[in-house]
Amino acid sequence: MKNSAILLVSCPDAKGEVATIADFVYRHGGNILHADEHADEESGLFLMRVEFDPKDFDLDLTDKHLTDFSKHFSPIADKFRMNWRLAQSSHRPRMIILVSKYDHCLVDLLYRHQSGELSCDIPLIISNHPDNQPIADFYKIPYVVVSTTRDNKRESEAQIHSLIQVHQADFLVLARYMQVLSNDFVNRYPQRIINIHHSFLPAFIGARPYHQAFTRGVKLIGATSHYVTEVLDDGPIIEQDVVRVSHRDTVEDLIRKGRDLEKVVLSRAVRWHVENRVLLYGNKTVVF
Amino acid sequence: MKNSAILLVSCPDAKGEVATIADFVYRHGGNILHADEHADEESGLFLMRVEFDPKDFDLDLTDKHLTDFSKHFSPIADKFRMNWRLAQSSHRPRMIILVSKYDHCLVDLLYRHQSGELSCDIPLIISNHPDNQPIADFYKIPYVVVSTTRDNKRESEAQIHSLIQVHQADFLVLARYMQVLSNDFVNRYPQRIINIHHSFLPAFIGARPYHQAFTRGVKLIGATSHYVTEVLDDGPIIEQDVVRVSHRDTVEDLIRKGRDLEKVVLSRAVRWHVENRVLLYGNKTVVF
Amino acid sequence: MKNSAILLVSCPDAKGEVATIADFVYRHGGNILHADEHADEESGLFLMRVEFDPKDFDLDLTDKHLTDFSKHFSPIADKFRMNWRLAQSSHRPRMIILVSKYDHCLVDLLYRHQSGELSCDIPLIISNHPDNQPIADFYKIPYVVVSTTRDNKRESEAQIHSLIQVHQADFLVLARYMQVLSNDFVNRYPQRIINIHHSFLPAFIGARPYHQAFTRGVKLIGATSHYVTEVLDDGPIIEQDVVRVSHRDTVEDLIRKGRDLEKVVLSRAVRWHVENRVLLYGNKTVVF
Amino acid sequence: MKNSAILLVSCPDAKGEVATIADFVYRHGGNILHADEHADEESGLFLMRVEFDPKDFDLDLTDKHLTDFSKHFSPIADKFRMNWRLAQSSHRPRMIILVSKYDHCLVDLLYRHQSGELSCDIPLIISNHPDNQPIADFYKIPYVVVSTTRDNKRESEAQIHSLIQVHQADFLVLARYMQVLSNDFVNRYPQRIINIHHSFLPAFIGARPYHQAFTRGVKLIGATSHYVTEVLDDGPIIEQDVVRVSHRDTVEDLIRKGRDLEKVVLSRAVRWHVENRVLLYGNKTVVF
Repeated sequence: MKNSAILLVSCPDAKGEVATIADFVYRHGGNILHADEHADEESGLFLMRVEFDPKDFDLDLTDKHLTDFSKHFSPIADKFRMNWRLAQSSHRPRMIILVSKYDHCLVDLLYRHQSGELSCDIPLIISNHPDNQPIADFYKIPYVVVSTTRDNKRESEAQIHSLIQVHQADFLVLARYMQVLSNDFVNRYPQRIINIHHSFLPAFIGARPYHQAFTRGVKLIGATSHYVTEVLDDGPIIEQDVVRVSHRDTVEDLIRKGRDLEKVVLSRAVRWHVENRVLLYGNKTVVF
Repeated sequence: MKNSAILLVSCPDAKGEVATIADFVYRHGGNILHADEHADEESGLFLMRVEFDPKDFDLDLTDKHLTDFSKHFSPIADKFRMNWRLAQSSHRPRMIILVSKYDHCLVDLLYRHQSGELSCDIPLIISNHPDNQPIADFYKIPYVVVSTTRDNKRESEAQIHSLIQVHQADFLVLARYMQVLSNDFVNRYPQRIINIHHSFLPAFIGARPYHQAFTRGVKLIGATSHYVTEVLDDGPIIEQDVVRVSHRDTVEDLIRKGRDLEKVVLSRAVRWHVENRVLLYGNKTVVF
Repeated sequence: MKNSAILLVSCPDAKGEVATIADFVYRHGGNILHADEHADEESGLFLMRVEFDPKDFDLDLTDKHLTDFSKHFSPIADKFRMNWRLAQSSHRPRMIILVSKYDHCLVDLLYRHQSGELSCDIPLIISNHPDNQPIADFYKIPYVVVSTTRDNKRESEAQIHSLIQVHQADFLVLARYMQVLSNDFVNRYPQRIINIHHSFLPAFIGARPYHQAFTRGVKLIGATSHYVTEVLDDGPIIEQDVVRVSHRDTVEDLIRKGRDLEKVVLSRAVRWHVENRVLLYGNKTVVF
Repeated sequence: MKNSAILLVSCPDAKGEVATIADFVYRHGGNILHADEHADEESGLFLMRVEFDPKDFDLDLTDKHLTDFSKHFSPIADKFRMNWRLAQSSHRPRMIILVSKYDHCLVDLLYRHQSGELSCDIPLIISNHPDNQPIADFYKIPYVVVSTTRDNKRESEAQIHSLIQVHQADFLVLARYMQVLSNDFVNRYPQRIINIHHSFLPAFIGARPYHQAFTRGVKLIGATSHYVTEVLDDGPIIEQDVVRVSHRDTVEDLIRKGRDLEKVVLSRAVRWHVENRVLLYGNKTVVF
């Protein structure tokens, strides 16, 4: 896969932003591969993602701090009050997976990673159970058990935090991790923790959503991948999908059908995150 | 369409029920066209729908009170404590449509009715607005305006009730009827009022669900058809469906996309009800 | 709905095209509302759609021939060898519907048109049968019967062609029009005739696709809307969708389920065409 | 999972069949858990699947040859000219997986098998490549390479046939096995070889269907699982599904999206086959 650079911008909506950004890339020798933008009328926000081929780009992108790029782009950013970020597909983000006992999402992510579907590195898997060590070993990913109880939440989160730093992780994926993270922890990683909830949010928030769905007698069940925020199951939704169920489906059938949904929905969200295609505005996401 | 008889049974689960019912139909000369049954483990309930060709049936089905059939079937029904009902496709149920200003579901139902998709009669349309008179006229269905205000709910519901009786309606369809019916009214027509709610229930209960969905940033929107019960938007779900939306969709787009969903979901629920394919158990439905 | 201008461009892929076009719009006072582009690697083609608010645009867009705009845009167009077109949402394209006896797509289009979903005018409906006159009358659209037989194809197509000219139609929609148009006729209206085929093309090309689907025992049936070209059912696909079927569905059920699909798929294609969102490359479409 | 017995019947449609079969099960002490039947009007065929709890069944079902059951059921079977089969969920069918290099379906089936989703045994994996040995080892399933070339088809098929016999396999799954089996081989295993084809059949029969789909510009891609028959990609369809694609998807994206489809579609077909839910009539399937 050839290298590409991705410029992500979010700022107040104003005339000339597309032209200015496109011109900047062009003037410096970049060839635009994809350009997506969205103006949100409600919030008056402008969001843009420009992916370009940096082969002939005349600013230095190899420098980790992007000093050269920043120097030239800052005047534009300042003028339009832009939040911006430049990502490069050659830089593989580092993802730590947290998992409990249910292994279907973990197994799925590891397989997709190995088959090249996810352009990220997985330096570590963290679990509160030893059960999933064998599959981690099979894919040669280090696996650490951080035991978590009611009484040691603070300590275990401190340990997880420390592992994140040691392994220089860019983001976390909760692949059916059955511990509720503290607000303190969550707030350290804004838009950097991806969760999979096994319902079509905002329906069936909280525990045992398949049982709730069964009791309510819905005709479709869903799964939702979202960024984790302080409010339970209320973070910005990245992706959702549903599957049809009927009276013939027991709770166990719902759980089985749901597994397939969860895998697909979570993996899409992770891939889009890795490809720098997800932008936030308010509590919502744009997926370009 | 040839005539068929449909025997609907609901009773405590017990051995021999399928055999006994099938044998009863067979012994009296009926040819089973479809047989569906479901045993619900949780409630210990057995539900069955048997559709048979009554051409050579030796019990009289022309009698409105089904005296002959009852006499012969009662011993079985008593033995297994069955709730049962015999419907005949030659008997077209009578449906009254209630509608406010939004006409998409009304227009859709009238078209489907005229094209033969719905085997029911529509003796009347009731509305709290005169706006939809022309389309009713086009399809030659009587249209009555029952004006409804905060202060005359009791009177207007009495008027509706009276119209139902005069027109011998078997069931009501709320085709985007924007008045909340009183508990008194609702309780008179158990499993006989079908509503369309413009969200994937139980998400976005209550008013302006598309606006709620827009604000929450969901990636799919839904529609739900259900029987009306005392608790708002909580009745047994007959059918649901969803459609994908994105950041590019405004609230107006959600409303437009939702219209297509609402039409399809409501019309399915009405058709299944008309074809005697919906059975209740607890607050849930089986659709055979 | 406020006015917007839509610039559609197709040309060989080259560096600087996004920047040049965005800059042109910006320099002349246009505010970009949406910008979409696609570079097709196989064909080396670049496609772009820019929708902008022309309120402060300094070039005259009221002139039917766009002389002013052309004069200023031509140098850019020439440089990049662009095919281009400027549409304005204030200009409602004129659509003639052709229909035979099946009325579901016609009824659906007329309802959507009346409810404001389709920003086009319908000067005329043409049919080879008188049956659908009443619904045309209801919506106050002129309806002309052009009888078509094996022997008068040339004459009837001449008559249709003449009606298109008299009514200054921009495009035609075949809403289950059961006559195969001659190559001569089709070639006069490239990318201007939209058809709905009642299968998931390229499966079940030709006559009676639901019967073919039934015989083959597929588990999903589909519908396809496409531009009409010389080769039967082979034109560029605009939209497709499917619905699940089972052994319980007879051919009649397939036809009924298919009607819902056909309506939705055709109306999406028509809406996208009307909103100038469909671009061609080779035998394929981009829908922006 | 508790044991259940499944009686599968296929015969000319006649009055009294449901009653007779239900009565037989009941009379011998079986408790019917599910009963499904279908009368196909075209072929005049009656198909039934009765699943019953054999706890109190008074005929011996432990005998491999079902002598006792046969003796009692034969008079009924003869009277109605039934093809019949009695399966028991306690008997886990033996499935051999054939695979080439693409491993996604294999990995998926092995995971589902291990997690208890597929009630079958996998005595062996056969491949024409050594590549997938490690995942087979991880799940502790024997893996045999049967090298296949143009010149040794007869020998390699003989070897596969011999392995099937040695391992007493009940059916074969072609999990992206890229060798076309000879008619001789296929005819030995009617309704016992399940294939996954990576298109929505009958569209894109034959090689490289994703490339065909890309070239045709379809808006949905599909996958089809079917029993293998002599005619390529023409066997009875068990399951199909589709996913939406757009101009932004390259052939590689189609292949990636298709993998998810193939996994889900094949695993459903395998599960239904294992659960004795698939019946054939002509070239079509009923899935009860």
